[in-house]
Amino acid sequence: MLAIGIDPGTAITGYGLVKELADGSLQVVDYGVIQTPASHAMPDRLVQLYQELKQIINLHEPQSGAVEKLFFARNVRTALSVGQARGIALLALAESSVAVAEYTPNEIKQAVAGYGGAEKLQVQMMVKALLNLEQVPQPDDAADALAVAICHLHSARLRSLEDQQDYLD
Amino acid sequence: MLAIGIDPGTAITGYGLVKELADGSLQVVDYGVIQTPASHAMPDRLVQLYQELKQIINLHEPQSGAVEKLFFARNVRTALSVGQARGIALLALAESSVAVAEYTPNEIKQAVAGYGGAEKLQVQMMVKALLNLEQVPQPDDAADALAVAICHLHSARLRSLEDQQDYLD
Repeated sequence: MLAIGIDPGTAITGYGLVKELADGSLQVVDYGVIQTPASHAMPDRLVQLYQELKQIINLHEPQSGAVEKLFFARNVRTALSVGQARGIALLALAESSVAVAEYTPNEIKQAVAGYGGAEKLQVQMMVKALLNLEQVPQPDDAADALAVAICHLHSARLRSLEDQQDYLD
Repeated sequence: MLAIGIDPGTAITGYGLVKELADGSLQVVDYGVIQTPASHAMPDRLVQLYQELKQIINLHEPQSGAVEKLFFARNVRTALSVGQARGIALLALAESSVAVAEYTPNEIKQAVAGYGGAEKLQVQMMVKALLNLEQVPQPDDAADALAVAICHLHSARLRSLEDQQDYLD
Protein backbone atom coordinates (compact mmCIF):
# COMPACT_ATOMS: atom_id res chain seq x y z
CA MET A 1 0.00 0.00 0.00
CA LEU A 2 1.59 3.25 -1.20
CA ALA A 3 0.05 6.52 -0.04
CA ILE A 4 0.80 10.11 -1.02
CA GLY A 5 0.25 12.95 1.43
CA ILE A 6 0.01 16.49 0.10
CA ASP A 7 0.27 19.79 1.99
CA PRO A 8 -0.94 22.28 -0.62
CA GLY A 9 0.04 25.94 -1.01
CA THR A 10 0.56 28.23 -4.01
CA ALA A 11 4.08 29.27 -2.95
CA ILE A 12 5.12 25.85 -1.64
CA THR A 13 3.38 22.47 -1.76
CA GLY A 14 4.80 19.58 0.23
CA TYR A 15 4.40 15.97 -0.84
CA GLY A 16 5.42 12.71 0.80
CA LEU A 17 5.06 9.09 -0.34
CA VAL A 18 5.02 6.35 2.26
CA LYS A 19 4.68 2.60 1.75
CA GLU A 20 3.30 0.19 4.31
CA LEU A 21 5.21 -3.09 4.17
CA ALA A 22 3.70 -6.54 4.78
CA ASP A 23 4.94 -6.50 8.40
CA GLY A 24 3.15 -3.21 9.02
CA SER A 25 6.31 -1.11 9.11
CA LEU A 26 6.50 2.13 7.12
CA GLN A 27 9.03 2.99 4.45
CA VAL A 28 9.57 6.42 2.95
CA VAL A 29 9.55 6.33 -0.86
CA ASP A 30 9.93 10.00 -1.77
CA TYR A 31 9.27 13.44 -0.37
CA GLY A 32 9.93 17.04 -1.27
CA VAL A 33 8.31 20.34 -2.16
CA ILE A 34 7.10 22.07 -5.29
CA GLN A 35 7.88 25.77 -5.21
CA THR A 36 6.47 28.31 -7.63
CA PRO A 37 8.07 31.76 -8.03
CA ALA A 38 6.09 34.67 -6.55
CA SER A 39 7.24 36.73 -9.57
CA HIS A 40 5.16 34.55 -11.93
CA ALA A 41 1.45 35.13 -12.59
CA MET A 42 -0.86 32.97 -10.45
CA PRO A 43 -2.33 31.02 -13.42
CA ASP A 44 1.21 30.07 -14.53
CA ARG A 45 2.13 29.05 -10.99
CA LEU A 46 -0.93 26.79 -10.85
CA VAL A 47 0.02 25.19 -14.18
CA GLN A 48 3.51 24.49 -12.81
CA LEU A 49 2.07 22.98 -9.63
CA TYR A 50 -0.36 20.84 -11.63
CA GLN A 51 2.32 19.54 -14.00
CA GLU A 52 4.84 18.72 -11.28
CA LEU A 53 2.21 16.97 -9.14
CA LYS A 54 1.08 14.93 -12.15
CA GLN A 55 4.70 13.90 -12.77
CA ILE A 56 5.11 12.72 -9.17
CA ILE A 57 1.80 10.82 -9.26
CA ASN A 58 2.62 9.20 -12.62
CA LEU A 59 6.11 8.25 -11.43
CA HIS A 60 5.06 6.55 -8.18
CA GLU A 61 1.45 5.56 -8.93
CA PRO A 62 0.22 5.74 -5.32
CA GLN A 63 -2.89 3.69 -4.48
CA SER A 64 -4.38 6.43 -2.35
CA GLY A 65 -3.82 10.01 -1.30
CA ALA A 66 -4.59 12.31 1.57
CA VAL A 67 -4.69 16.03 2.25
CA GLU A 68 -5.26 18.05 5.38
CA LYS A 69 -8.84 19.14 6.01
CA LEU A 70 -8.75 22.89 6.54
CA PHE A 71 -11.38 24.77 8.49
CA PHE A 72 -9.44 27.81 9.51
CA ALA A 73 -6.83 30.08 8.00
CA ARG A 74 -5.20 33.33 9.04
CA ASN A 75 -7.63 35.21 6.84
CA VAL A 76 -9.86 34.93 3.80
CA ARG A 77 -7.07 35.83 1.39
CA THR A 78 -4.90 32.99 2.73
CA ALA A 79 -7.85 30.60 2.50
CA LEU A 80 -8.47 31.57 -1.14
CA SER A 81 -4.82 31.05 -1.98
CA VAL A 82 -4.59 27.68 -0.20
CA GLY A 83 -7.91 26.72 -1.78
CA GLN A 84 -6.52 27.35 -5.26
CA ALA A 85 -3.54 25.06 -4.67
CA ARG A 86 -5.74 22.51 -2.93
CA GLY A 87 -8.10 22.41 -5.91
CA ILE A 88 -5.14 21.67 -8.20
CA ALA A 89 -3.94 18.85 -5.88
CA LEU A 90 -7.40 17.24 -5.69
CA LEU A 91 -7.77 17.50 -9.48
CA ALA A 92 -4.37 15.92 -10.16
CA LEU A 93 -5.13 13.02 -7.79
CA ALA A 94 -8.66 12.42 -9.08
CA GLU A 95 -7.53 12.48 -12.72
CA SER A 96 -5.17 9.60 -11.93
CA SER A 97 -7.98 7.78 -10.08
CA VAL A 98 -6.19 8.14 -6.74
CA ALA A 99 -8.86 8.14 -4.01
CA VAL A 100 -8.38 11.09 -1.67
CA ALA A 101 -9.05 11.11 2.06
CA GLU A 102 -9.07 14.20 4.27
CA TYR A 103 -7.94 14.45 7.88
CA THR A 104 -8.16 17.27 10.38
CA PRO A 105 -4.91 18.59 11.91
CA ASN A 106 -5.94 16.89 15.19
CA GLU A 107 -6.47 13.53 13.50
CA ILE A 108 -3.01 13.80 11.92
CA LYS A 109 -1.31 14.68 15.23
CA GLN A 110 -3.23 11.89 16.97
CA ALA A 111 -2.17 9.31 14.37
CA VAL A 112 1.48 10.35 14.19
CA ALA A 113 2.34 11.57 17.69
CA GLY A 114 -0.31 9.79 19.76
CA TYR A 115 -2.31 12.80 20.83
CA GLY A 116 -4.17 15.57 19.06
CA GLY A 117 -2.50 18.40 20.94
CA ALA A 118 1.04 17.50 19.89
CA GLU A 119 3.44 20.31 18.95
CA LYS A 120 4.74 20.65 15.40
CA LEU A 121 8.25 19.58 16.46
CA GLN A 122 6.92 16.48 18.23
CA VAL A 123 5.05 15.48 15.08
CA GLN A 124 8.20 15.98 13.00
CA MET A 125 10.28 13.88 15.43
CA MET A 126 7.70 11.10 15.21
CA VAL A 127 7.72 11.26 11.40
CA LYS A 128 11.52 10.84 11.55
CA ALA A 129 11.21 7.90 13.99
CA LEU A 130 8.35 6.11 12.21
CA LEU A 131 10.11 6.31 8.85
CA ASN A 132 13.58 5.45 10.25
CA LEU A 133 15.07 8.65 8.89
CA GLU A 134 18.36 10.07 10.14
CA GLN A 135 17.07 13.64 10.12
CA VAL A 136 13.72 15.38 10.40
CA PRO A 137 12.60 15.75 6.76
CA GLN A 138 13.08 19.26 5.44
CA PRO A 139 11.46 21.62 4.66
CA ASP A 140 8.51 21.64 7.08
CA ASP A 141 5.97 21.31 4.25
CA ALA A 142 7.52 17.98 3.20
CA ALA A 143 7.46 16.72 6.81
CA ASP A 144 3.82 17.79 7.09
CA ALA A 145 2.96 15.92 3.90
CA LEU A 146 4.67 12.76 5.21
CA ALA A 147 2.64 13.10 8.44
CA VAL A 148 -0.58 13.20 6.38
CA ALA A 149 0.48 10.06 4.49
CA ILE A 150 1.33 8.24 7.77
CA CYS A 151 -2.05 9.26 9.24
CA HIS A 152 -3.77 7.89 6.16
CA LEU A 153 -1.98 4.51 6.34
CA HIS A 154 -2.80 4.21 10.06
CA SER A 155 -6.44 5.01 9.39
CA ALA A 156 -6.59 2.55 6.51
CA ARG A 157 -5.20 -0.19 8.78
CA LEU A 158 -7.76 0.63 11.47
CA ARG A 159 -10.57 0.54 8.92
CA SER A 160 -9.29 -2.79 7.63
CA LEU A 161 -9.22 -4.23 11.19
CA GLU A 162 -12.75 -2.94 11.79
CA ASP A 163 -13.92 -4.58 8.58
CA GLN A 164 -12.41 -7.90 9.70
CA GLN A 165 -14.12 -7.50 13.06
CA ASP A 166 -17.45 -6.85 11.37
CA TYR A 167 -16.89 -9.99 9.32
CA LEU A 168 -16.11 -12.05 12.42
CA ASP A 169 -19.07 -10.70 14.41
CA MET B 1 -11.74 40.36 -29.61
CA LEU B 2 -13.49 37.50 -27.76
CA ALA B 3 -13.34 37.45 -23.97
CA ILE B 4 -14.52 34.85 -21.46
CA GLY B 5 -15.64 35.86 -17.99
CA ILE B 6 -15.80 33.23 -15.26
CA ASP B 7 -17.55 33.35 -11.89
CA PRO B 8 -16.10 30.30 -10.11
CA GLY B 9 -17.72 28.13 -7.46
CA THR B 10 -17.62 24.43 -6.66
CA ALA B 11 -21.42 24.01 -6.74
CA ILE B 12 -22.00 26.38 -9.67
CA THR B 13 -19.57 28.17 -11.97
CA GLY B 14 -20.88 30.83 -14.34
CA TYR B 15 -19.26 31.55 -17.69
CA GLY B 16 -19.96 34.15 -20.36
CA LEU B 17 -18.34 34.79 -23.73
CA VAL B 18 -18.60 38.27 -25.24
CA LYS B 19 -17.19 39.55 -28.52
CA GLU B 20 -16.35 43.16 -29.23
CA LEU B 21 -17.19 44.01 -32.84
CA ALA B 22 -15.25 46.42 -35.06
CA ASP B 23 -17.74 49.23 -34.31
CA GLY B 24 -17.17 48.76 -30.57
CA SER B 25 -20.53 47.12 -29.92
CA LEU B 26 -20.75 43.97 -27.85
CA GLN B 27 -22.19 40.63 -28.92
CA VAL B 28 -22.95 37.71 -26.67
CA VAL B 29 -21.48 34.46 -27.98
CA ASP B 30 -22.36 31.98 -25.25
CA TYR B 31 -23.13 31.84 -21.56
CA GLY B 32 -24.26 29.36 -18.98
CA VAL B 33 -23.30 27.54 -15.83
CA ILE B 34 -21.46 24.37 -14.89
CA GLN B 35 -23.10 22.64 -11.95
CA THR B 36 -21.55 19.79 -10.01
CA PRO B 37 -23.67 17.54 -7.77
CA ALA B 38 -23.17 18.02 -4.02
CA SER B 39 -23.55 14.24 -3.67
CA HIS B 40 -20.27 13.66 -5.55
CA ALA B 41 -16.86 13.74 -3.87
CA MET B 42 -15.07 17.10 -4.17
CA PRO B 43 -12.16 15.74 -6.27
CA ASP B 44 -14.67 14.34 -8.80
CA ARG B 45 -16.57 17.63 -8.86
CA LEU B 46 -13.34 19.48 -9.61
CA VAL B 47 -12.54 17.06 -12.45
CA GLN B 48 -16.00 17.68 -13.93
CA LEU B 49 -15.55 21.47 -13.64
CA TYR B 50 -12.09 21.26 -15.23
CA GLN B 51 -13.28 19.11 -18.15
CA GLU B 52 -16.36 21.21 -18.91
CA LEU B 53 -14.39 24.47 -18.73
CA LYS B 54 -11.73 23.04 -21.07
CA GLN B 55 -14.48 22.05 -23.53
CA ILE B 56 -15.91 25.59 -23.51
CA ILE B 57 -12.46 27.16 -23.93
CA ASN B 58 -11.52 24.77 -26.75
CA LEU B 59 -14.85 25.34 -28.50
CA HIS B 60 -14.73 29.16 -28.52
CA GLU B 61 -10.98 29.83 -28.24
CA PRO B 62 -11.30 33.18 -26.44
CA GLN B 63 -8.33 35.57 -26.76
CA SER B 64 -8.49 36.59 -23.13
CA GLY B 65 -10.25 35.78 -19.89
CA ALA B 66 -11.23 37.48 -16.67
CA VAL B 67 -12.30 36.45 -13.19
CA GLU B 68 -13.46 38.42 -10.20
CA LYS B 69 -10.77 39.38 -7.71
CA LEU B 70 -11.99 38.19 -4.32
CA PHE B 71 -10.85 39.72 -1.05
CA PHE B 72 -13.72 38.77 1.15
CA ALA B 73 -16.02 35.84 1.65
CA ARG B 74 -18.65 34.91 4.19
CA ASN B 75 -16.12 32.79 6.02
CA VAL B 76 -12.91 30.84 5.63
CA ARG B 77 -14.72 27.66 4.55
CA THR B 78 -16.45 29.52 1.71
CA ALA B 79 -13.14 31.09 0.69
CA LEU B 80 -11.46 27.66 0.58
CA SER B 81 -14.28 26.27 -1.54
CA VAL B 82 -14.32 29.22 -3.96
CA GLY B 83 -10.52 29.07 -4.06
CA GLN B 84 -10.61 25.44 -5.18
CA ALA B 85 -12.93 26.23 -8.09
CA ARG B 86 -10.98 29.38 -8.91
CA GLY B 87 -7.74 27.42 -9.08
CA ILE B 88 -9.34 25.05 -11.59
CA ALA B 89 -10.58 27.98 -13.72
CA LEU B 90 -7.17 29.70 -13.74
CA LEU B 91 -5.48 26.39 -14.63
CA ALA B 92 -7.88 25.67 -17.50
CA LEU B 93 -7.38 29.17 -18.96
CA ALA B 94 -3.59 29.19 -18.55
CA GLU B 95 -3.23 25.73 -20.13
CA SER B 96 -4.93 27.11 -23.25
CA SER B 97 -2.68 30.20 -23.16
CA VAL B 98 -5.63 32.48 -22.43
CA ALA B 99 -4.29 35.51 -20.51
CA VAL B 100 -6.32 36.12 -17.36
CA ALA B 101 -7.15 39.51 -15.87
CA GLU B 102 -8.71 40.08 -12.46
CA TYR B 103 -11.16 42.81 -11.48
CA THR B 104 -12.59 43.81 -8.13
CA PRO B 105 -16.39 43.77 -7.72
CA ASN B 106 -16.30 47.60 -7.73
CA GLU B 107 -14.38 47.73 -11.01
CA ILE B 108 -16.93 45.38 -12.57
CA LYS B 109 -19.92 47.43 -11.38
CA GLN B 110 -18.18 50.64 -12.50
CA ALA B 111 -17.49 49.25 -15.98
CA VAL B 112 -20.94 47.74 -16.52
CA ALA B 113 -23.34 50.03 -14.65
CA GLY B 114 -21.30 53.25 -14.51
CA TYR B 115 -20.70 53.35 -10.80
CA GLY B 116 -19.02 51.07 -8.28
CA GLY B 117 -21.92 51.05 -5.83
CA ALA B 118 -24.48 49.67 -8.29
CA GLU B 119 -26.93 47.04 -7.06
CA LYS B 120 -26.85 43.50 -8.42
CA LEU B 121 -30.10 44.00 -10.34
CA GLN B 122 -28.84 47.23 -11.95
CA VAL B 123 -25.72 45.38 -13.13
CA GLN B 124 -27.88 42.60 -14.56
CA MET B 125 -30.14 45.09 -16.39
CA MET B 126 -27.07 46.76 -17.89
CA VAL B 127 -25.70 43.38 -18.99
CA LYS B 128 -29.03 42.75 -20.74
CA ALA B 129 -28.96 46.22 -22.38
CA LEU B 130 -25.29 46.18 -23.44
CA LEU B 131 -25.65 42.73 -25.02
CA ASN B 132 -29.07 43.46 -26.61
CA LEU B 133 -30.66 40.53 -24.84
CA GLU B 134 -34.42 40.17 -24.44
CA GLN B 135 -34.13 38.91 -20.87
CA VAL B 136 -31.68 39.23 -18.02
CA PRO B 137 -29.38 36.19 -18.46
CA GLN B 138 -30.16 33.38 -16.04
CA PRO B 139 -29.00 32.11 -13.64
CA ASP B 140 -27.27 34.93 -11.73
CA ASP B 141 -23.87 33.24 -11.98
CA ALA B 142 -24.05 33.39 -15.79
CA ALA B 143 -25.05 37.09 -15.68
CA ASP B 144 -22.16 37.77 -13.28
CA ALA B 145 -19.73 36.03 -15.63
CA LEU B 146 -20.98 38.12 -18.57
CA ALA B 147 -20.48 41.26 -16.46
CA VAL B 148 -16.86 40.25 -15.82
CA ALA B 149 -16.31 39.72 -19.57
CA ILE B 150 -17.86 43.13 -20.39
CA CYS B 151 -15.67 44.80 -17.74
CA HIS B 152 -12.63 43.16 -19.29
CA LEU B 153 -13.47 44.33 -22.83
CA HIS B 154 -14.07 47.90 -21.58
CA SER B 155 -10.77 47.88 -19.74
CA ALA B 156 -8.95 46.50 -22.78
CA ARG B 157 -10.41 49.29 -24.91
CA LEU B 158 -9.35 51.92 -22.36
CA ARG B 159 -5.84 50.49 -22.26
CA SER B 160 -5.72 50.52 -26.04
CA LEU B 161 -6.83 54.20 -26.16
CA GLU B 162 -4.22 55.07 -23.55
CA ASP B 163 -1.54 53.34 -25.59
CA GLN B 164 -2.59 55.36 -28.68
CA GLN B 165 -2.49 58.55 -26.61
CA ASP B 166 1.01 57.70 -25.38
CA TYR B 167 2.02 57.21 -29.00
CA LEU B 168 0.55 60.56 -30.09
CA ASP B 169 2.10 62.51 -27.20
